[in-house]
Amino acid sequence: MSDTAQRVLAGDRRAISRAITLIESGRADHRTQALALLDTLAGSGRQALRVGLSGTPGVGKSTFIESFGLMLADAGQTVAVLAVDPSSARSGGSILGDKTRMEHLSRHPNAFIRPSPSQTALGGVARRTREAVALLEAAGTDVILIETVGVGQSETMVAQMCDVFALLIAPAGGDELQGVKRGIMEVADLILVNKADGELRSAATRTAADYQGALRLMRKRADDPPGMPRTMTVSAIRREGLPEAWDQISALADWRKANGHWQRRRAAQAARAFADEVRAGLLAAISADPALAASMARLEQDVLDGRRQPAAAAAEVIGSLKAR
Amino acid sequence: MSDTAQRVLAGDRRAISRAITLIESGRADHRTQALALLDTLAGSGRQALRVGLSGTPGVGKSTFIESFGLMLADAGQTVAVLAVDPSSARSGGSILGDKTRMEHLSRHPNAFIRPSPSQTALGGVARRTREAVALLEAAGTDVILIETVGVGQSETMVAQMCDVFALLIAPAGGDELQGVKRGIMEVADLILVNKADGELRSAATRTAADYQGALRLMRKRADDPPGMPRTMTVSAIRREGLPEAWDQISALADWRKANGHWQRRRAAQAARAFADEVRAGLLAAISADPALAASMARLEQDVLDGRRQPAAAAAEVIGSLKAR
Repeated sequence: MSDTAQRVLAGDRRAISRAITLIESGRADHRTQALALLDTLAGSGRQALRVGLSGTPGVGKSTFIESFGLMLADAGQTVAVLAVDPSSARSGGSILGDKTRMEHLSRHPNAFIRPSPSQTALGGVARRTREAVALLEAAGTDVILIETVGVGQSETMVAQMCDVFALLIAPAGGDELQGVKRGIMEVADLILVNKADGELRSAATRTAADYQGALRLMRKRADDPPGMPRTMTVSAIRREGLPEAWDQISALADWRKANGHWQRRRAAQAARAFADEVRAGLLAAISADPALAASMARLEQDVLDGRRQPAAAAAEVIGSLKAR
Repeated sequence: MSDTAQRVLAGDRRAISRAITLIESGRADHRTQALALLDTLAGSGRQALRVGLSGTPGVGKSTFIESFGLMLADAGQTVAVLAVDPSSARSGGSILGDKTRMEHLSRHPNAFIRPSPSQTALGGVARRTREAVALLEAAGTDVILIETVGVGQSETMVAQMCDVFALLIAPAGGDELQGVKRGIMEVADLILVNKADGELRSAATRTAADYQGALRLMRKRADDPPGMPRTMTVSAIRREGLPEAWDQISALADWRKANGHWQRRRAAQAARAFADEVRAGLLAAISADPALAASMARLEQDVLDGRRQPAAAAAEVIGSLKAR
């Protein structure tokens, strides 16, 4: 086993950081090394509790992660925070670009914080996050918070790699109601209304009741225990409601483990990741062949213009691939 | 141009029926003929208004389609109904297995009804429906209703091939609340609470208000005009609220056309269909090679068991493919 693998397994933070940098690299030789490292670490058998956390800017997500992470870290758990922000390349910086956002947590010996890399493609972000999660699990991390802003398909992507998904929202008055992204209602296990303190306390309680009502209109999912999904109020800045939120998250994880849902969900996630990687690899193999790539681009344009049907155009691509 | 293509373009119902049968066939020679026919018809440039319609058994979906379709057909529009039921192979019959479900509509000269074929794979159902839609558009159909039951991913699939999506639900009392599938809130443009008549009228009004409240908690999508998505009450059996529902659907379609959303949505749908077909074709090429297929199955199991990482296992599949 390589020295790096051994150090990652021992929980060495510098080795973990370097391994994630390796994973994020676009260089072919780095990629080969990264895949070898991941394959070596795959045998560790360690699992973390992966918690997806979504919330738009302004809901107090950084404060929540700081308070929530410190609560866990102070209790002796090792905590990692991974940021998933497909727009970071566009906005010119990562949402976790400086660690001042989570000043105390970033210095805690039990915590590991990693910003979102400046990558563009959602597929690339998904792979990087999936592989960083695998590294952190091999390193013995107890809880991995996978943070995302509500942009594009990022919540769905995060939902496909976490065990429990929490949505953080702000209290809303009548007019200023912004609303949550529709897709989020499909994946959320816990809706946390933050800023339930001071003047906003009653608004937070009303908002929580509104979302609880909306959740009641939706059908139970197979892996929902009684009473879930549910809404709660919290105050990240006053650290109120956080132990209760953690109780809900860990009780849900325990229930899913006891009922086989955890294992099924992880297996389905792994199968999907594998299928995604095979498809991405096949398309990359086509793109790497200039003649095939040009033919595929031309056929796609024909489909977009309505001159060809998708299946017929696709059959032509596959035919060209086989003929080579 | 083939005789079949000419007859489809002329709106010949028997030719359309036979062409759909050809599309649904699993025989390779039929597939070749079907793709050639679709490519010939692709140049027609005709477009229908494609309306997705979802609703669980018991909400009165057949009655709604019968009444709604007759209203349109009597007004001189040509109407087609396609059923999408990925579970029909399991349940041993199509949800539109006999046309007695829509007795009057099925005999109307302006209407064309086609049941769901007994296919299993969702991908196969998606392709068949997409291609039947293309045939019906080339045949000059004005409105295509794509009907689905709320099973698995079928709503998402239908949403990816329609211009407007309507959800039919039943009035709910306090205890019997079943709830809608979460994903449906993401794709629905119009929520129609059926059975707003007799004793259920006030329950229907309450249910509509509840869902309207839930919709308000969610963020506007880019292609939503002011006031959409929205909830309405209808009575399919008394034919009440149907002209209003049609007004909403056609106004939404007009707005999306005027604002470029219609075109963008169709282009995105076509691009996705092409990408799906290319991926399916590539995976089929792998499956057709016994050694490759066995290697892929073994690698997938390794991923499921946690022995390999998805990207590394996928790289091995791609490597084997290239080496052949």
